[in-house]
Amino acid sequence: MDNITKFFDPKTVAVIGASRNPNKIGHIILSNFVDGFKGKIFPINPKIDKVLRHKCYPGISSVKEKIDLAVIAVPAPVVPDVLEECGKNGVKACIIVSGGFRESGKIELEKKMEKIVKKYKTRVIGPNCIGIYDPYSGVDTIFNPRYKLERTEKGSISFISQSGATMSVIMDWMAMRKYKTSKLVSYGNAIDVDEADLVEHFANDKKTKVICLYVEGVNKGRKLMKSMKKVSKKKPIVAMKAGVTEAGKGAALSHTGSLAGHSDVYHAAFKQSGVLLASDLEQMFDFARVLSTQPSPAGKRVQIITDGGGFGVISTDWLIKNGMEIAEMGESNRKRIRKLAPVHASVEGVIDLTGDATSGMYKECIEASLDDENVDIVFVVALFQPPMLTSDLVEILIEETARKKKPIIVVSAGGSYTDVLKKSLEENGVPCFSYPKGAADAAKCLYNYSKIKYS
Amino acid sequence: MDNITKFFDPKTVAVIGASRNPNKIGHIILSNFVDGFKGKIFPINPKIDKVLRHKCYPGISSVKEKIDLAVIAVPAPVVPDVLEECGKNGVKACIIVSGGFRESGKIELEKKMEKIVKKYKTRVIGPNCIGIYDPYSGVDTIFNPRYKLERTEKGSISFISQSGATMSVIMDWMAMRKYKTSKLVSYGNAIDVDEADLVEHFANDKKTKVICLYVEGVNKGRKLMKSMKKVSKKKPIVAMKAGVTEAGKGAALSHTGSLAGHSDVYHAAFKQSGVLLASDLEQMFDFARVLSTQPSPAGKRVQIITDGGGFGVISTDWLIKNGMEIAEMGESNRKRIRKLAPVHASVEGVIDLTGDATSGMYKECIEASLDDENVDIVFVVALFQPPMLTSDLVEILIEETARKKKPIIVVSAGGSYTDVLKKSLEENGVPCFSYPKGAADAAKCLYNYSKIKYS
Repeated sequence: MDNITKFFDPKTVAVIGASRNPNKIGHIILSNFVDGFKGKIFPINPKIDKVLRHKCYPGISSVKEKIDLAVIAVPAPVVPDVLEECGKNGVKACIIVSGGFRESGKIELEKKMEKIVKKYKTRVIGPNCIGIYDPYSGVDTIFNPRYKLERTEKGSISFISQSGATMSVIMDWMAMRKYKTSKLVSYGNAIDVDEADLVEHFANDKKTKVICLYVEGVNKGRKLMKSMKKVSKKKPIVAMKAGVTEAGKGAALSHTGSLAGHSDVYHAAFKQSGVLLASDLEQMFDFARVLSTQPSPAGKRVQIITDGGGFGVISTDWLIKNGMEIAEMGESNRKRIRKLAPVHASVEGVIDLTGDATSGMYKECIEASLDDENVDIVFVVALFQPPMLTSDLVEILIEETARKKKPIIVVSAGGSYTDVLKKSLEENGVPCFSYPKGAADAAKCLYNYSKIKYS
Repeated sequence: MDNITKFFDPKTVAVIGASRNPNKIGHIILSNFVDGFKGKIFPINPKIDKVLRHKCYPGISSVKEKIDLAVIAVPAPVVPDVLEECGKNGVKACIIVSGGFRESGKIELEKKMEKIVKKYKTRVIGPNCIGIYDPYSGVDTIFNPRYKLERTEKGSISFISQSGATMSVIMDWMAMRKYKTSKLVSYGNAIDVDEADLVEHFANDKKTKVICLYVEGVNKGRKLMKSMKKVSKKKPIVAMKAGVTEAGKGAALSHTGSLAGHSDVYHAAFKQSGVLLASDLEQMFDFARVLSTQPSPAGKRVQIITDGGGFGVISTDWLIKNGMEIAEMGESNRKRIRKLAPVHASVEGVIDLTGDATSGMYKECIEASLDDENVDIVFVVALFQPPMLTSDLVEILIEETARKKKPIIVVSAGGSYTDVLKKSLEENGVPCFSYPKGAADAAKCLYNYSKIKYS
């Protein structure tokens, strides 16, 4: 256990700056813990004696028990004193959500805090961050109301982001789509814990299968590169760099006060470190969903199965553009499919079951693809609109995917009816896309990682 | 009025092959008309005398009234006789949804039909197509059940697609997102009416502002190019070509029996004709949404207004990559914003209101951008999660967009709460995107079309 573990799995938590005012950050964070945290909670505020049915303490020193994690939500000028008190009382981990430091020109205040951190060896995330969301332990320092910002369910994707807004908005977006996560962290100004520390921690975290990293600028580039190089063969790392244009760098500078650096340098460093590059946030989680649920493919031969010819054509285009290949199934498996498929179906190359497709036909085609030695990845376009196609195709896809024999990627475009089925697929570990492009990019990413892993 | 109008706005419709069996195509289509069509409906089937509370006729000749549109849903071998009867009885427009012709090797059957079409000058859409959906007139020949495939509301985007599955799935997808449409057509084997006829018809259709075209292969390339060239200065045409790789072309051949041709030739022809190219289906409708609701920009200077710094950085990156520019607002408007914005906000270049943004601040920034002569396009990143930001920002965005002073494009990422607000924006003519990339691509498309229009 490294000294980062306490952030994610504390037994005791103090919320410093706990408040009775429901609009205050100190109230929202406390109520998150009251709602979802299984350990002990200690609100700290010298002005009140009770909040949310919990006894309130005047300071950390008046709590008799050992505090594993302190969440600090007090005005910036008070933060150093609070940090000192935490250090004195043996608190091992602090998340400082308060803003008003380097990003507002208060560099001296931050330096003062850095000294305290060194003195007590306290580990600190922040300041100027949103902190942590961990659905397993219930640690949740996100100070956006839950009706506006949904929380994700337990999964295996972890996400590291300097930016708090980016981290929390992404979570909200993922939650509605039933994408699941392990640990989400916004680390802000990073006076202590940085990207590299988190990457190394997640490398050893059993609940994390894929590490996602959103960066604008990095202060300790070599340290991060070293960590990524070490970790990327063990677990996939997907990274996105923002501030890749000159104007974007300017925007990043005024956003976080950090230099965005030359994007070519970043991209080269990421590639050398075995990191998978995403070009935008949506793609980052498209990659992560597939990497966290699907086995490594043995090669790049993709079998497309579709009930809409046009979607088969577009899928083929995108896969080929991505350097993948269309699988050529063996004759015995092709025969097996021909027996069941509609007379006007195509079974050479792309299997087009047409609008007469049934879930039984899909099952046979998927199983033939899983059995066939010429197929590495199964790419299922399941348009649920045709009258004969019943929703038990969802169960079939879940069962076949659970076998983990070969990666299965699903494309399913549509409205409300389709949306319900897609969410059910996602919840059960079947990555599902609306359009062929995203799915083809994810297939390529899966193949790319198989090369990184075994290189 | 050209002779295509009858397809979209008939007063009398015959459904040939009307059936009492709810699983039959002839039943689903008839019930669509019974549900939504305001004109007179004549079911045709010699074996039954009543269906869905409508009198059923043994044949077209036994209907006393003039039939404007006949929808033919009978087995392929019977279609030529039915077509002949339609011609004899003066039916001016027929949609043949039945399949089993050229795509199944029955070329002779199609040739026979072509002769009948010439003889009577009947206009025909199909065969082997899904036909038409027009929310204004209630013409709806889509034979997928409505619970599986939602219908779109009245709007101004028209869509032309050879492929029926592509057309109908797209509609379902659009309906859930509250994207609105005018006329959607799948024209199948095109023995008579083709893409060019439809492009020219939509050019004169008052309810169509943008024409979208999905093609795999085109039979009469020169005719289409001529039509597009004529129309594109009057109304934007967005086209997507599928089957751009060799393998994709093969898939297209087995899908529709048409040669996909060389993609470079298509792309060159599209560009020469003033057509905007979309690289995938989602992007096609991203473009169409913006083109159908927003005015032409005077230039390419984009003012970004955001409450999330990271999203501001990513937006800048994508706009610059697309060849757009970040606007430099005049000092007087900047002052106006500085007065209201939070102290730690950035107002040079990208306006970052931070997580302390309120809807009042957004209003001021949008109005300053609309007033400022250095701004051509207003790019609003509205992340709705911050506690202080109220949902009346939706009304502000709708009002400011309705002024049509300059194009406004919105980015709003999130979950269920955000989704409700996004749908409200879409319904009221404000194009809204989940991530910066799609919005930046749409901004570029808007600028590109302004150049085509005024070149």
